[in-house]
Amino acid sequence: MQDTVRVAVDAMGGDNAPLEIVKGAVEAVNEREELQLFLVGNEGRIEAELAKYQFKREKITVVPASEEISCDEAPVMAIRKKKDSSIVVALNLVKEGKADAFVSAGSSGAILVGGQLIIGRIKGIERPPLAPLIPTLKGVSLLIDCGANVDARPSHLVQFAQMGSIYMENILGISKPRVAIVNIGAEEAKGNALVKETYPLLKECKDINFIGSIEARDIPYGMADVIVSEAFVGNVILKLSEGLAGALVSAIKDGMMSTTRSKMGALLVKPALKETLKKFDATEYGGAPLLGLNGLVVKVHGSSKSKEVKNALIQCIQFKAEGINDKIKENIIKKKEENMN
Amino acid sequence: MQDTVRVAVDAMGGDNAPLEIVKGAVEAVNEREELQLFLVGNEGRIEAELAKYQFKREKITVVPASEEISCDEAPVMAIRKKKDSSIVVALNLVKEGKADAFVSAGSSGAILVGGQLIIGRIKGIERPPLAPLIPTLKGVSLLIDCGANVDARPSHLVQFAQMGSIYMENILGISKPRVAIVNIGAEEAKGNALVKETYPLLKECKDINFIGSIEARDIPYGMADVIVSEAFVGNVILKLSEGLAGALVSAIKDGMMSTTRSKMGALLVKPALKETLKKFDATEYGGAPLLGLNGLVVKVHGSSKSKEVKNALIQCIQFKAEGINDKIKENIIKKKEENMN
Repeated sequence: MQDTVRVAVDAMGGDNAPLEIVKGAVEAVNEREELQLFLVGNEGRIEAELAKYQFKREKITVVPASEEISCDEAPVMAIRKKKDSSIVVALNLVKEGKADAFVSAGSSGAILVGGQLIIGRIKGIERPPLAPLIPTLKGVSLLIDCGANVDARPSHLVQFAQMGSIYMENILGISKPRVAIVNIGAEEAKGNALVKETYPLLKECKDINFIGSIEARDIPYGMADVIVSEAFVGNVILKLSEGLAGALVSAIKDGMMSTTRSKMGALLVKPALKETLKKFDATEYGGAPLLGLNGLVVKVHGSSKSKEVKNALIQCIQFKAEGINDKIKENIIKKKEENMN
Repeated sequence: MQDTVRVAVDAMGGDNAPLEIVKGAVEAVNEREELQLFLVGNEGRIEAELAKYQFKREKITVVPASEEISCDEAPVMAIRKKKDSSIVVALNLVKEGKADAFVSAGSSGAILVGGQLIIGRIKGIERPPLAPLIPTLKGVSLLIDCGANVDARPSHLVQFAQMGSIYMENILGISKPRVAIVNIGAEEAKGNALVKETYPLLKECKDINFIGSIEARDIPYGMADVIVSEAFVGNVILKLSEGLAGALVSAIKDGMMSTTRSKMGALLVKPALKETLKKFDATEYGGAPLLGLNGLVVKVHGSSKSKEVKNALIQCIQFKAEGINDKIKENIIKKKEENMN
């Protein structure tokens, strides 16, 4: 028998809450026996959504929370004041050991602040990065950090590289993952002040396989497994990838509908094209974990539909099985001992 | 009769020099009567390339330069020491009034430093930005800055916004171009230190149509005409757009070749698809001008083929006709007078 994986879900977070969140939760418990979910938020609205579906009722518990945190609110203030918000209540379930993981499509800032204030950072971790997988021609790469840690320091980026490496090795099973730093040229002398300071520190790091700089143009070709960047640049890479893929696909579809000849061709290429585009669809890859916390926090896209929510919930099974944050903690302790010797 | 436009071309710059540079130069003079070109670099190699083509010989003058500046060299040192390099010799032709413009596919750093040291900045301009046009679903947007000005200050970004506005109004004919700053959220409170400081300054600017922040995901949809960013982020946006479009197109082509059915369809959709992809092909839009100098400097992609070189040379005709740098100069003088009153 498999271990139960208990996930506290922010049912009120994201553009399509609670509708798509609840739908994704139902799809997840219907697909994976080991999931046990807490849907946190407005009880009446959640129950109304749940009433639409068939599922084993004992798999989903509704936990009431009377407040919501919007994306416009200042995160620190919101987490401190709104004690009965879906984010705070759900994070407390993880803190108290009642849940193994927290999943939300809500405000990135509030999730980041809440994760740090309520669950807490692993001792020795300076900043917890948000690390989504992005599709490439060769599979996926981990983009670390895309979170709210703007204006990072070199020591933060070094920890991002180490945590990203542990993630790719344990979750994706890639041995000696290739780590690269996003830069505007391949040479060590290139870059802004942050990259120039970080580069030699990464080169010295013995526990990662640092391959140097990566130019943004090489990212979609899968030239590195772990792509290190400060959050502002990481966010631009993530969002631009999504936007450009969407825009290009819509232009291609319009183009194919422009003549009778190409319309006929479109019918024939459609199945193969769909398969190709699925590989480049970020929603296939679930959520992004916030690494380096004393518990599992997973952020899904604000515009997530049920599929993305479901995938993120299923991902938690593997995150728990692999104990990603425990492995990060062991690594930090090991490094400390090495430094003391 | 049209005015002659004289362009000094760095025949030795870029991955495909002198072959593709010379080919592009020939194609340009064969297409546009008013172009008069100086091909600067290794005389023997340039003449050997020229010998392959048919063109009016009086349209192209070979100017010998014995040295080359590579992308690995420190730009300031290279420009100071290599007085007989193709970049320095060509820039001097512009400085001396023998040429109207300089075009190069060589080292961005050397072009930027050379442009400033040899041709000089317009008085009052703090930093000259590199401003390429990028394809969007609605046409093109100007991305400013993608150059070597890393670690920019807020006042630089404000000037980039003003210069970009003048460019889009005069070169593209867009009235009141929409100016936006690249950010990681739409709200004014979002962003890194640089963006937070720059945002209120842009809001106060009366000579631009500032529409606020733009998230990277909205860039390909053409949500702004002038996209302001510091150079590191701008470079990431430019390079990632190129890389992702290339990767996606190659994945789509492979996908279409995967089954017999889709292969047949591919034949039918090909013409329409080609038309669509052409719109997203950055090489169609020629080079990127370095704005704010006392002369016209245009950078083309290091990997440029003849088509991109030809387009950049033809672009110089319009740049000269519109007097883009003169308009920037007038604007700076006008602002100074306004501030004195």
